[in-house]
Amino acid sequence: MSIKLGVLISGSGTNLQAIIDRIADGTIDASIELVVSSRSDAYGLLRAQAAGIQTLTMDKSFYDEDFTADRIIASEMRSRGVDYILMAGYMRMVHDPLLAAFPNRIVNIHPALLPSFKGAHGIQDAYNYGVKVTGVTVHFADNRYDCGPIIAQRALAVQEGWTVDELEAEIHKIEHVLYPEVVGLLAAGRVHVCDNGTVEIAPA
Amino acid sequence: MSIKLGVLISGSGTNLQAIIDRIADGTIDASIELVVSSRSDAYGLLRAQAAGIQTLTMDKSFYDEDFTADRIIASEMRSRGVDYILMAGYMRMVHDPLLAAFPNRIVNIHPALLPSFKGAHGIQDAYNYGVKVTGVTVHFADNRYDCGPIIAQRALAVQEGWTVDELEAEIHKIEHVLYPEVVGLLAAGRVHVCDNGTVEIAPA
Repeated sequence: MSIKLGVLISGSGTNLQAIIDRIADGTIDASIELVVSSRSDAYGLLRAQAAGIQTLTMDKSFYDEDFTADRIIASEMRSRGVDYILMAGYMRMVHDPLLAAFPNRIVNIHPALLPSFKGAHGIQDAYNYGVKVTGVTVHFADNRYDCGPIIAQRALAVQEGWTVDELEAEIHKIEHVLYPEVVGLLAAGRVHVCDNGTVEIAPA
Repeated sequence: MSIKLGVLISGSGTNLQAIIDRIADGTIDASIELVVSSRSDAYGLLRAQAAGIQTLTMDKSFYDEDFTADRIIASEMRSRGVDYILMAGYMRMVHDPLLAAFPNRIVNIHPALLPSFKGAHGIQDAYNYGVKVTGVTVHFADNRYDCGPIIAQRALAVQEGWTVDELEAEIHKIEHVLYPEVVGLLAAGRVHVCDNGTVEIAPA
């Protein structure tokens, strides 16, 4: 079953590129219908355009108290028949107009092992804390920041002497593998959110 | 360099046994000078006695507002020349009379990847949350519960369909390997707490 994706970005879009690449090489049976950016200078917009994907950019005036951006995103995604929306370095919260339109259909990736190190600085915060293991989490978004049912996590042992930049590079490597893997699970219909808020992955 | 250890227990003492075993087979160059229990029915007391280790048990009346238990533990450990105190399923906090006597010399093991899932139910809490990766943390104790500089962590991927009992069994297997490894690092003098509260492990 091929699924239709929308992707939300704000920056360089390396996770977007990883998913574009896995679709292009046939690993994932999916298509990206629309890329939405919260910043006009996001390099990920160029990646999307190079892949022939429609893009929509809303400046910060759309991110208002009426959740105008969320309403537009919900409408545009729905009109394209999008199954799942992927947050990929999207530096905005998603709100009820969008969450309610895509319940357990909005996916986020976070560069730490949630529930540790929520927030915009997960890698640096883990590094400063001195953890010896950190990692990457892919989860469904809900109306709490970096919460929501966990779909997949991968651990990374922090090596002695690593700088925060070295840690960040290794985290990104994992992201670029794990996020496409999760999209593959979604495309295969293997991801099920249980009533208790945990996620079961059905056998292949 | 052989180091002298004290161990604090409250229960079955399986981590104590793992360390006794690694000392007995020569993996760790250390000796256990004293086992202190906060409960007289702790099975770990029998393990200690079987290994010829002195034991001291204080009932709950010693755990008073004057930190009587902590003062006695500090005094008994110091008089035996103990280098490091290992908390091994010890269901009591350690307080300043003991912490100040053994700064960065009291070690705790926690059955989750701190700072996630602090508290007395780390395994169950992680399971209920639905994490896909959890693990074990060995850290120095300080006057905050399950905080303090992290010495070592090991991750465990939670397999689909595991019961909480299966998760617990796998966590304990890791504990029984990781805790002796950390004691080995301490015995080798390779564990250094930095000014910023992180821990560096020196090369072998």
